Amino acid sequence: MSSHEFYMDLALYNAKNMKGQTDPNPLVGSVIVNDNRVVGIGTHLKAGEPHAEVHALRMAGDLSRGATIYVTLEPCSHFGRTGPCAQAIIDAGIKKAIVATLDPNPIVSGNGVRMLEEAGIEVIVGVREQEAQEMNEVFNKFIVEKTPFVTLKAASTLDGKIATHSLDSKWITSEEARLDVHLLRSQHMAILVGVGTVVEDDPELTARIPNGRNPLRVVLDSTLRIPLDSKLVTDGIADTWIFTSKQYDADKRKALEALGISIYETSSDTQVDVSDVVRVLGEKGISSLFIEGGGTINAAFLENGLIDKVVFYFAPKLVGGKIAPTFIEGTGIEWMKDAIDLRNGEFTKIGKDFKFTGYPEKRGSNI
Amino acid sequence: MSSHEFYMDLALYNAKNMKGQTDPNPLVGSVIVNDNRVVGIGTHLKAGEPHAEVHALRMAGDLSRGATIYVTLEPCSHFGRTGPCAQAIIDAGIKKAIVATLDPNPIVSGNGVRMLEEAGIEVIVGVREQEAQEMNEVFNKFIVEKTPFVTLKAASTLDGKIATHSLDSKWITSEEARLDVHLLRSQHMAILVGVGTVVEDDPELTARIPNGRNPLRVVLDSTLRIPLDSKLVTDGIADTWIFTSKQYDADKRKALEALGISIYETSSDTQVDVSDVVRVLGEKGISSLFIEGGGTINAAFLENGLIDKVVFYFAPKLVGGKIAPTFIEGTGIEWMKDAIDLRNGEFTKIGKDFKFTGYPEKRGSNI
Repeated sequence: MSSHEFYMDLALYNAKNMKGQTDPNPLVGSVIVNDNRVVGIGTHLKAGEPHAEVHALRMAGDLSRGATIYVTLEPCSHFGRTGPCAQAIIDAGIKKAIVATLDPNPIVSGNGVRMLEEAGIEVIVGVREQEAQEMNEVFNKFIVEKTPFVTLKAASTLDGKIATHSLDSKWITSEEARLDVHLLRSQHMAILVGVGTVVEDDPELTARIPNGRNPLRVVLDSTLRIPLDSKLVTDGIADTWIFTSKQYDADKRKALEALGISIYETSSDTQVDVSDVVRVLGEKGISSLFIEGGGTINAAFLENGLIDKVVFYFAPKLVGGKIAPTFIEGTGIEWMKDAIDLRNGEFTKIGKDFKFTGYPEKRGSNI
Repeated sequence: MSSHEFYMDLALYNAKNMKGQTDPNPLVGSVIVNDNRVVGIGTHLKAGEPHAEVHALRMAGDLSRGATIYVTLEPCSHFGRTGPCAQAIIDAGIKKAIVATLDPNPIVSGNGVRMLEEAGIEVIVGVREQEAQEMNEVFNKFIVEKTPFVTLKAASTLDGKIATHSLDSKWITSEEARLDVHLLRSQHMAILVGVGTVVEDDPELTARIPNGRNPLRVVLDSTLRIPLDSKLVTDGIADTWIFTSKQYDADKRKALEALGISIYETSSDTQVDVSDVVRVLGEKGISSLFIEGGGTINAAFLENGLIDKVVFYFAPKLVGGKIAPTFIEGTGIEWMKDAIDLRNGEFTKIGKDFKFTGYPEKRGSNI
């Protein structure tokens, strides 16, 4: 590990720990080093407040002169709610800037680096680039595509079953894994389930962690068969939006709307059109969506190329069963050579269980 | 890590690398340390040749006097094909003995340690015990139970499918994972498949690695529908044994036996009785069995409590499909709380894929 990576890791560490409190801004961290010692650290804390570089420059004070600044995201070059950070860096007398990744917004990407270079500052881009991009994967997609970053979550036995043949599913994973799911819920703007889950389990779909943010609850329900007394309809803990098809029950719609539930009709005659769901959520400003559906919903999103990331929890146990449900069903892909590859896949241990994260290879819809 | 663990790791490393060449003897390694330096190393190489301790004592020569010996398995106390190692250790003037694990054979377990202690040698037992036991897991079971150590292998997509809904399965895992399977085959005395695999794929079931030992090939075939021209019947590369039910075709049996194939009738009227298979293989001296069946065979062995270890290869890809086959089918377990837990489970990366190994919790049959 070079010293550049050492200091960038410090900047990344501080930035990552602000997850959930900077929206709609990205996570950014910064470190200033003068004569081989850290003279300033900074991290963006909250939208509207100073950027990471400004905090770090303030801490460094006069020691910024001739120093090297590390920043996890290209400094901004435009006047937003704060002044341009690139100018602040120039004014402070910084001699060298190490940047993890360029701004993901194609309209401004590269401008901050150019501004620094034109002022005679030496700039290196790309130190810990992948980590810096993954840290802001939600922001990076939404700012460009205006549709949510979609994470598919599943919890299964090691043989891929999400319930036994008799449909018993309590509990597959350990408490530690379930707590991790609550943490992920709190880091997403919306959580999505099928109406089957609502009918069977009557869940709250809240983030049961201290200070956890409760996401918007989205239900796919092609006929509006959701019970009027279900918790998602009545508890008022968070908003609930229902996406339906053209065959919905009109009276039920009125009853639900009277209870404060928003109903969105999608373009399909029978099943809810999942591409419509993602598009509409994007239009409404929802930048991150966490899918906790069953095998049919999961397959629909996956086969339509709508999944950006998967998080699978595997319990080290086996239940077997030819008819036991698995976490991706639907028709499925016909040829093994056409399987959807998962990039950057990795397993980590969580309690007694194993957590896999990976990124589905992108391709055209309806594979 | 203490120095005891450091030296025991060296002994374990040498022992493990003899895998496959010491049968029917266990793997054993030994290290002798005098005045903080290694003065002898030894490993058991081949049945009938000196034990690990003897090799190490010879290398150490006079420096054994007052030294500490590390040995991965309790030194033997009886005259076998070689003299008792415990006596050789005493005669060499060893002062201290560190033993990873006791002899698994209840008839002699503890005798070697007692013999050393009675001669005034200080003995510590249990350093790296789990590793030492796992290294000889096959030997340790067979010497006590006289039935083979049974390993269940499967290769699937991350969503648990062993083929697509159209039954296409080529290829799920990468070449590195498939090579690892060939290595495991060469380390087992027998490999087992269902007749369906023979009919569909006409496999050779050989270990395609340099100097790889080809295991006995075992086929479960309740009616003897195996084709007479299949490679397992005709190629002569290794022996093939077929286990059948009471409903087998008598003429086909004669034809197969005329081609040198051994046929064993099990006690069941319809399906092959898998408990009979394991018992008969044990009686014939088969100490290790590698199962490469489909979901039905895998479920039968698992539900009858016959699996000692599982090795699952997961490719980081998804195919989905409600009817796509999974690697453990059968009826399955009814309640999630009764799922079969896998002890000491761990994932390692192998090529692009992930390999899981674990040990099914033992319980009564027909769960």
